[in-house]
Amino acid sequence: MLSAFTEPTCGGDSGFMPLGHTCHVLVRIGCRFEYEVAESAPSLWQVRPRPDGSHRMLTERWEPPAPARVYLDAYGNLCDRLVLPSGTSTLRYDGTVEVPPTFDEADKGAAQEPIQHLPDEAFVYLLPSRFCWPDVLHDQAWNLFESSEPGWARVQAVSDWVHDHITYVIGASTPLTTAFDVWESRTGVCRDLTQLMVTLCRALNVPARYVAGYLPDIAVTPPDLPMDFCSWVEVWLEGRWWTFDPRNNEPRIGRVVIARGRDALDAAMVTTWGAANLKAMAVWADEIRDGA
Amino acid sequence: MLSAFTEPTCGGDSGFMPLGHTCHVLVRIGCRFEYEVAESAPSLWQVRPRPDGSHRMLTERWEPPAPARVYLDAYGNLCDRLVLPSGTSTLRYDGTVEVPPTFDEADKGAAQEPIQHLPDEAFVYLLPSRFCWPDVLHDQAWNLFESSEPGWARVQAVSDWVHDHITYVIGASTPLTTAFDVWESRTGVCRDLTQLMVTLCRALNVPARYVAGYLPDIAVTPPDLPMDFCSWVEVWLEGRWWTFDPRNNEPRIGRVVIARGRDALDAAMVTTWGAANLKAMAVWADEIRDGA
Amino acid sequence: MLSAFTEPTCGGDSGFMPLGHTCHVLVRIGCRFEYEVAESAPSLWQVRPRPDGSHRMLTERWEPPAPARVYLDAYGNLCDRLVLPSGTSTLRYDGTVEVPPTFDEADKGAAQEPIQHLPDEAFVYLLPSRFCWPDVLHDQAWNLFESSEPGWARVQAVSDWVHDHITYVIGASTPLTTAFDVWESRTGVCRDLTQLMVTLCRALNVPARYVAGYLPDIAVTPPDLPMDFCSWVEVWLEGRWWTFDPRNNEPRIGRVVIARGRDALDAAMVTTWGAANLKAMAVWADEIRDGA
Amino acid sequence: MLSAFTEPTCGGDSGFMPLGHTCHVLVRIGCRFEYEVAESAPSLWQVRPRPDGSHRMLTERWEPPAPARVYLDAYGNLCDRLVLPSGTSTLRYDGTVEVPPTFDEADKGAAQEPIQHLPDEAFVYLLPSRFCWPDVLHDQAWNLFESSEPGWARVQAVSDWVHDHITYVIGASTPLTTAFDVWESRTGVCRDLTQLMVTLCRALNVPARYVAGYLPDIAVTPPDLPMDFCSWVEVWLEGRWWTFDPRNNEPRIGRVVIARGRDALDAAMVTTWGAANLKAMAVWADEIRDGA
Repeated sequence: MLSAFTEPTCGGDSGFMPLGHTCHVLVRIGCRFEYEVAESAPSLWQVRPRPDGSHRMLTERWEPPAPARVYLDAYGNLCDRLVLPSGTSTLRYDGTVEVPPTFDEADKGAAQEPIQHLPDEAFVYLLPSRFCWPDVLHDQAWNLFESSEPGWARVQAVSDWVHDHITYVIGASTPLTTAFDVWESRTGVCRDLTQLMVTLCRALNVPARYVAGYLPDIAVTPPDLPMDFCSWVEVWLEGRWWTFDPRNNEPRIGRVVIARGRDALDAAMVTTWGAANLKAMAVWADEIRDGA
Repeated sequence: MLSAFTEPTCGGDSGFMPLGHTCHVLVRIGCRFEYEVAESAPSLWQVRPRPDGSHRMLTERWEPPAPARVYLDAYGNLCDRLVLPSGTSTLRYDGTVEVPPTFDEADKGAAQEPIQHLPDEAFVYLLPSRFCWPDVLHDQAWNLFESSEPGWARVQAVSDWVHDHITYVIGASTPLTTAFDVWESRTGVCRDLTQLMVTLCRALNVPARYVAGYLPDIAVTPPDLPMDFCSWVEVWLEGRWWTFDPRNNEPRIGRVVIARGRDALDAAMVTTWGAANLKAMAVWADEIRDGA
Repeated sequence: MLSAFTEPTCGGDSGFMPLGHTCHVLVRIGCRFEYEVAESAPSLWQVRPRPDGSHRMLTERWEPPAPARVYLDAYGNLCDRLVLPSGTSTLRYDGTVEVPPTFDEADKGAAQEPIQHLPDEAFVYLLPSRFCWPDVLHDQAWNLFESSEPGWARVQAVSDWVHDHITYVIGASTPLTTAFDVWESRTGVCRDLTQLMVTLCRALNVPARYVAGYLPDIAVTPPDLPMDFCSWVEVWLEGRWWTFDPRNNEPRIGRVVIARGRDALDAAMVTTWGAANLKAMAVWADEIRDGA
Repeated sequence: MLSAFTEPTCGGDSGFMPLGHTCHVLVRIGCRFEYEVAESAPSLWQVRPRPDGSHRMLTERWEPPAPARVYLDAYGNLCDRLVLPSGTSTLRYDGTVEVPPTFDEADKGAAQEPIQHLPDEAFVYLLPSRFCWPDVLHDQAWNLFESSEPGWARVQAVSDWVHDHITYVIGASTPLTTAFDVWESRTGVCRDLTQLMVTLCRALNVPARYVAGYLPDIAVTPPDLPMDFCSWVEVWLEGRWWTFDPRNNEPRIGRVVIARGRDALDAAMVTTWGAANLKAMAVWADEIRDGA
């Protein structure tokens, strides 16, 4: 299948490549949550892909456990709101998407944009947020990365540093763990590595946002872990957003963006009010080899 | 089933009424289009419900004939864009929604809002648009309705007049037919009655918008016609939008809004570029009696 | 002054070029309206520049004749709403802006974008609107311009044709005149030439929008007419919007955008409800030679 | 002047009360900043009133120290971006507004809205943010306020508690001080009292947002302090936002909203990048007694 990636006329970010084109990658994405609540509990869900991702939808099935209403939040994320009924209930989302058959784009010469040239919408991604404190880690960031070349090289240096210095330890963090805590403890999970990279980039005046999504294991050796939601970083360099992934620290194929925000809080898969017991969860993001 | 409607504690416009509540109406909605095109043709679709309708989603299945991308237009309508591949292709949407078990709300005392008190977003619905020319039908509107009481009574008078004076004739209009043409010919289909009522209301300084949606035959005798998409009017009176339906001219249960706009153009189910041959279409909006 | 335009390091579209830079063009813009109304009349105003124009603001003074509230409409235009009090009243807006010292940008090789590659927000500018009927003028547009090269050359051909074939006749049109009327009569004012070009471009599948603004007479011989608001066209070619101006049909310096929309209706300077008598109006857009 | 407030037909929140009405309050608002920077420094400013405040604009003068561009951020705040040139520069904003002649509205019976009934846009104001940590102060909030009646009474109890228990100490806090720090130290300035009240309300499931604005000393004894920007709280109860002000803890007349957000970070008057030395600042918000 990898041979497809060498086809030069293939891909592009358009939403309109006609079907029948020989060059495409199909991915089945989705998730299943089983919750148990004693009393009915309001909840917010972000598990469906963002409208403006690079994927295109082929089929989609959405089965909330109770009547749901959808809205777009201020970041453009699809948020489904519903009340978990008392007892056990199951939410399921299942989709087939077509993704570009190409690795994360890279331009090693991409320059850092001076603040005065940033687009309006990038400013919020320079500011501190609940879990990302560039105001606190400012000096540390400059001490570590001042000597690197501004632009792509510096951002890659941040990704390398986070990848190399933060030990991936399941259970290392709680919902209250900030990127500053991760800086201190040097341990964390995917969310924590992402938030630390976001923080350091902002301290260096590079707009950075937190992204949550589905990430299939295409052209890589699958890790020895159950599939889960993933998070990564988007930074603004020379006129556009670019993907970096301090957890994996290598280009990937087939990211399907669910949510973007200032940190993990804005991009949470599930937010519930009241006691809610997660009994089971499954996530899938699998290439369909002889697809469609 | 109608007994459900008498439950006093039932309903409300919240997205969050817990499942298990004994009082609800479930409706299966959806559509199926079969197109044949010689050359691949870009297309826009508005067949999925608007996020902000009064329905809540229970299950949803979306099967475009080619990879699709969704966006929200300036009216808040969900627009799916895709390229119809050459040959025959089928698009299908199927959903189960819960709707309030109540008839269109009415308040016969609702006053007309002075223009200076309208919300900002209502102004665009006072202006002329491609098919609705209150600037041309201004005098006619005032001649007919000046003697009516401003507010609900006047709007109801417009609905009555359109219902009574425009003969429903299938094939009476083309895609270029304006509300002024309908005024002259006194014939039209659902779209035409809706657009004429929109036009007359705007001429009378009542903000009015065109709505397209699914309309199940609940608590009415089904018409002797195949189910189709429906259109109706929303007008602004005394602080909120109200539904009027000059085609049926009676309150209904279970409207599921797909799209809103200045006229039928903004709320078109399908827009294609290039020759596209519609081979077959089916629309459904059926109450599920022993549902979920 | 023109020598400034040859400075190579000058300009850029940033909002942030530091003051003190020797290379800039300052323009004083503004307008004054005097209205007389018998009874107080609600009104909407679009006379202040759009936030996202290429100008930058140096000083600004806003003096409505009655307390005003501002909102952004769905096109991003600044709309001021106020009630004209009975009697005579004067509205005044006066600003000093810095504009890029460069002529309208041009790229004669810019290609037409296939519909499937257009950005979402361009679609509305392909559709018909109140005064622009590409659905009616479709065949005429293709007859005239089919032989031209798609892209910049075709759009320029449309601008040339409108400029050459529509006679500028003050008083030729009314507020109800459509671009189709102008096609038939071959006469019109600025608004009419603009709307006809918009219509023909849309018929040719080129997204086109109506723009109203201030246009100083920089590097041109001032016409022998009092200064007025101007209108021009923006079309989407190869990934961005470009300015065309069928009235003047030559590149200009210093356009300050007030409003954009589907046609003149969306970009009206003033909309009033009730009888309102315009007693006097002045518009200014003058370069400040030894400015600031 | 206070007699005006007893006029029963006076006021309303419309933007359109005709001039000439005998009942109105005029306020002159504005500010002046003098900055000195060694190297030119990008900056963001929020000193102009939000478009959607309850004020109406009568005259307005805006004089940034360098060409500025404006945009609306995701909260709807007017943000002006400009580069402070090296050396000393002065920014000035001056406006005359009409405000409702009435005290902050209150409804002591307003109920707390169940989370499932909140409007979509309220959810973000339940979440933690950089300086407001309801996730950390959750138990403390419930310990203090669980016994109060949910709704208006509970929110008033929070305002009373913050007003009574946090000592206003100029210089008590730094730009990094969180509401949790204020909880611990029991000291702070206006920003800190506001953020602590926001935090406690969110912990109690009441959506709360941070507001910055101009606040004239109308019908109160002016404090013995130079006029400054003010901050206060808006909470969502029973279908709308209500103003609370833990600093003053009494209803006021004439608030002019500049910015709203999750905390002081989103509503900062000035944000600069690079060393910038504030040399002088003045703020005014004064009733005009025999005004306009």
